[in-house]
Amino acid sequence: MESSFRFTLHSTDGAARRGEFHTPHGVVQTPAFMPVGTQGTVKAALHRDVRDAGAEIILGNTYHLFLRPGDELIARRGGLHRFIGWTGPILTDSGGFQIFSLAERRVIREEGAEFQSHLDGSRHVLTPERAVDIQARLGSDIAMVLDECLSYPASRDDAAASMQRSVRWARRCRDRFTELPAEPDVQVSNPGQAQFGIVQGGVFQDLRNESADETTAIGFEGYAIGGLSVGEPVEMMYGVTEQTVSRLPVDRPRYLMGAGTPEDLVESVARGIDMFDCVMPTRNARNGQLFTSAGRINIKNARYAEDDRPLDPACGCYACQHHSRAYLRHLYLAGEMTAGALNTLHNLTFYLDTMRRIRDAIAFRTFDTFRQGFLRSASRLSLDS
Amino acid sequence: MESSFRFTLHSTDGAARRGEFHTPHGVVQTPAFMPVGTQGTVKAALHRDVRDAGAEIILGNTYHLFLRPGDELIARRGGLHRFIGWTGPILTDSGGFQIFSLAERRVIREEGAEFQSHLDGSRHVLTPERAVDIQARLGSDIAMVLDECLSYPASRDDAAASMQRSVRWARRCRDRFTELPAEPDVQVSNPGQAQFGIVQGGVFQDLRNESADETTAIGFEGYAIGGLSVGEPVEMMYGVTEQTVSRLPVDRPRYLMGAGTPEDLVESVARGIDMFDCVMPTRNARNGQLFTSAGRINIKNARYAEDDRPLDPACGCYACQHHSRAYLRHLYLAGEMTAGALNTLHNLTFYLDTMRRIRDAIAFRTFDTFRQGFLRSASRLSLDS
Repeated sequence: MESSFRFTLHSTDGAARRGEFHTPHGVVQTPAFMPVGTQGTVKAALHRDVRDAGAEIILGNTYHLFLRPGDELIARRGGLHRFIGWTGPILTDSGGFQIFSLAERRVIREEGAEFQSHLDGSRHVLTPERAVDIQARLGSDIAMVLDECLSYPASRDDAAASMQRSVRWARRCRDRFTELPAEPDVQVSNPGQAQFGIVQGGVFQDLRNESADETTAIGFEGYAIGGLSVGEPVEMMYGVTEQTVSRLPVDRPRYLMGAGTPEDLVESVARGIDMFDCVMPTRNARNGQLFTSAGRINIKNARYAEDDRPLDPACGCYACQHHSRAYLRHLYLAGEMTAGALNTLHNLTFYLDTMRRIRDAIAFRTFDTFRQGFLRSASRLSLDS
Repeated sequence: MESSFRFTLHSTDGAARRGEFHTPHGVVQTPAFMPVGTQGTVKAALHRDVRDAGAEIILGNTYHLFLRPGDELIARRGGLHRFIGWTGPILTDSGGFQIFSLAERRVIREEGAEFQSHLDGSRHVLTPERAVDIQARLGSDIAMVLDECLSYPASRDDAAASMQRSVRWARRCRDRFTELPAEPDVQVSNPGQAQFGIVQGGVFQDLRNESADETTAIGFEGYAIGGLSVGEPVEMMYGVTEQTVSRLPVDRPRYLMGAGTPEDLVESVARGIDMFDCVMPTRNARNGQLFTSAGRINIKNARYAEDDRPLDPACGCYACQHHSRAYLRHLYLAGEMTAGALNTLHNLTFYLDTMRRIRDAIAFRTFDTFRQGFLRSASRLSLDS
């Protein structure tokens, strides 16, 4: 395929980068956070609310969409964008991470991953080539290569073998990706799709370096760092990120997969990361765990029963503009779906506002000041205790 | 209390009436449909979406709000409007209907209804006076008297005894309502609150007539017809409605409680009803049962798996403007909360658009033509079979 993907670096501030990338469905300002829309919807949020919160790109999960409603059905609908009615850019993962999370329900071989559906137990094989084909049918703007994801901790030998397999799979993915225009059996929904490689290697920096060198040698439109934010100490994550970024080409976007807390976003941008995705804002919201500029709130807490203040007086989201903590607590305890909707709106707004502030700070070359202030604001601390 | 409630009749077309009523929180055009916001939220819909769908007034359930978070807590928040952040008019029921639905968990005496909470089994007594006090603390714009609700079918003797008790309770409710300004123990959240009486009497027209005469003799700002839409044949409901309306004063709004299907709305307006509430649009939405101008749709149906059309091409709601039946079916089968949100948006829009069309038709004196066309449009029929 001939990708129309283009990344432009606008400015830097230390290792932090301010840029944008162009896709067939629009432009994304970086550093960017991608809300997770696993099954073709960000959970508990309508597309317009996701967009209004400031999202320019969302993520779809290949594993889930392949199983239901199926990539061929989606291709017949004109691709994922048309099927779900999201007109902006979409990134799809390869399905690998979900399959590796199935534990006993999957077997990994050189050919690919054999797994059983969590929905009906049906058996499937996901090869690197098939991961490419499925994502071509989905027609995302950015497709990810199939990689092997290790759990933490892993031995050096396991990490090395897995990383080398991921490199071989990456090569097969890229070969398949370049063959697709001549492949009559795959309905390509988005001819301008880009493909990103993924650096693996666990927490072993020499393996990370080797993976980065091999993966960039294959050549992709962008590069992700996978296999982090899986339980390793946060300083280890930051260290591997910093070292790995230094081996990646400056003219391609860098995506730290699956991270993280708001502090992780700021700290990773400080180390040169351009893109993020994480279920934390949406999942925590549905569990009543809310992020505010003054600290975290568990809305279930009895101390909010008669608290007439907004969740976060500094926030401009619909929930903060119209509702009190007391009301949000009531909705949560009453099991109302609108609790999930309002909390999700708020947490997404908090994450996406943080990204906007990050981008502004880099552009004004005040990122280090912003970073220190953000970490001091104790947003990682709980207001409940 | 000195109610600031005012009803103005603009025009009539046959028995159908076009009017408006004024409340301390704004004006409501009639005939009006009130979405049900049981626990201080319309289920699966944010207030702005309820308003955008065309709702000018919502209903809150006294039984639920009394139990959680409690009427005194709500009064301390400044009343229900402030607590939930809905700035428009609110009507509250008396709690009677929910208590009578508790079956084995309640005992009715002349003094009032003793019941056990469905949440924690705690015992409570709801007297007519207490129903008034609770609603005064909630501060709704329209409060309802406590009435006894019979199930269908009921014997004539049971219906007569129950109706007479409801009349005695209505008198006690009105007495308490007029005493409230001098009652230091009740924090009145909305001094301009109005109070509606309720006509009972089952399907026995002589009892209905007696109830209407006794209730209007007490004198309320408006009158409801209760105890219908509880399982009786639809023609019986229409007949009792028509006869009962003729005994009610023309200068007060008439509210048919708990009805109904879209056809019930049109047929009841044709008999002189001004106000409705019903869980049908919201509850059906969450179950995937959708109303369209061409008929009803069960979105689970396999025939919609690859249907790229909107739910209803004639509908302007967000779901119909942005999403296909195939996508809505996918969201429903995937168990996504956004399925409930989009389906609720659509069904509410269908109901509220129907009310708008009814109001226009009365104003243009074309209501009978509209009514015939509406019933012919087969909106009661399923598109699935």
